[in-house]
Amino acid sequence: MQDTDLKAVREKIRAGEHPGPTSGLASGHVQTNLVVLPEDYAFDFLKFCIRNPKPCPILEVTDEGSPSAPVMAPEADLRTDVPKYRVYEAGELVDEPPDIRGYWEDDLVSFLIGCSFTFETALLAAGLRLTHQDQSKNVPMYVTDRECVPSGPFSGPMVVSMRPYKPDEIPAAVSVSGRYPAMHGAPVHIGEPSALGVKDLDHPEFGEAVTIGEDETPVFWACGVTPQAVALQARPPLMITHSPGHMFITDRRNAEYEV
Amino acid sequence: MQDTDLKAVREKIRAGEHPGPTSGLASGHVQTNLVVLPEDYAFDFLKFCIRNPKPCPILEVTDEGSPSAPVMAPEADLRTDVPKYRVYEAGELVDEPPDIRGYWEDDLVSFLIGCSFTFETALLAAGLRLTHQDQSKNVPMYVTDRECVPSGPFSGPMVVSMRPYKPDEIPAAVSVSGRYPAMHGAPVHIGEPSALGVKDLDHPEFGEAVTIGEDETPVFWACGVTPQAVALQARPPLMITHSPGHMFITDRRNAEYEV
Repeated sequence: MQDTDLKAVREKIRAGEHPGPTSGLASGHVQTNLVVLPEDYAFDFLKFCIRNPKPCPILEVTDEGSPSAPVMAPEADLRTDVPKYRVYEAGELVDEPPDIRGYWEDDLVSFLIGCSFTFETALLAAGLRLTHQDQSKNVPMYVTDRECVPSGPFSGPMVVSMRPYKPDEIPAAVSVSGRYPAMHGAPVHIGEPSALGVKDLDHPEFGEAVTIGEDETPVFWACGVTPQAVALQARPPLMITHSPGHMFITDRRNAEYEV
Repeated sequence: MQDTDLKAVREKIRAGEHPGPTSGLASGHVQTNLVVLPEDYAFDFLKFCIRNPKPCPILEVTDEGSPSAPVMAPEADLRTDVPKYRVYEAGELVDEPPDIRGYWEDDLVSFLIGCSFTFETALLAAGLRLTHQDQSKNVPMYVTDRECVPSGPFSGPMVVSMRPYKPDEIPAAVSVSGRYPAMHGAPVHIGEPSALGVKDLDHPEFGEAVTIGEDETPVFWACGVTPQAVALQARPPLMITHSPGHMFITDRRNAEYEV
């Protein structure tokens, strides 16, 4: 929880000495999704996020061409302080570099979007398990049949993440995650996957399937993969994101976003 | 709480048959602040709101030139469904019409911003008084010494509204309003006005002063006048807002925004 820890972690990432995922790093600090787009796409993308706040909770938008995030992390550099990036050209993945200074353009706008790590930390603190962690998997994510409200070239279905819980754990899972509306908040769907357009829990579109106990019910949260998937479909000439699990670590604390 | 009530109210407003304030109308439905700006200013203004979510909680942004709000009120017309508007040219008030079809331009973008009516309704439901209502006044609003995080041409201090409470009422006032983060949420300051840069409670910059009991403490909430004041300072060629107290009534219910 110390800021010294945050500083040390950020320096290591910036120096390329921590190429791995960020889960558990600089504990207590908010980690975010990163989406970087040319200015021509920025206003429509921001409107898309505002129209779909459950999957796309916007925490910060930078000035055009600026690599700094004055609200969330004034001293960070968005071009170097994520351990691994993904670079897409016209919707195709072309690189997965540890730093994006070579791709930077003066017209790029960066979006920091809330991430499930914050509510997962709170679920653990409340004594609830995270099945995907217990099974050493990435959380399973599914494409639903719920269309997001479109904006300009951005449209597509909501993506959800799934964590199974026992009937008597579900109320706490709802209320604990619900205290973080800026980090996806409460679940969007509890139970019957087909009612959400999810046909096969064993074959998630992103992440990995987990084994669900017979006494467990799948609980679905709106997922930050939604805005990335939607932005990719628009095939912008350049788009940069974090690589899954390799998040941007901010100065702000999870507790600041608790309602 | 009936939608028939909402429909009837909206039709009356549209027909110019309800020129007055909207407080208490279509009860249970979210009412919002309205700011309309040319597209050239829209992205910077939206970034300003994202950077300052306590005074500027954004609920919806429309498509350029479109007078409809598909998320909050798909059947409403933003040009006719507010009882009274204010029209500003280069930062000067030029008209206060009941309908803005005559001022509409194809490049206008509308912003719906959360309003204190939602948490005030919840405060009343929790048995707390609203002193300004009891004294038949507009809520007093003050310019603070807290600078908002700027964005492009938009910068300026945070404006707050003030409601006095007794020491044993303050905890409930905080927790009840805090359940509505999209409607300004919990207070930003409790007690000593000078620590917020407010010198004289008897002379609010907006609204009207209220008499504060000797056993009462002033409680300050971030106020939706902030984005209007900041937008006016930028002196855009055209800017349209609701007239104070004459809000836009949406289809959405207050309870949908309760965390």
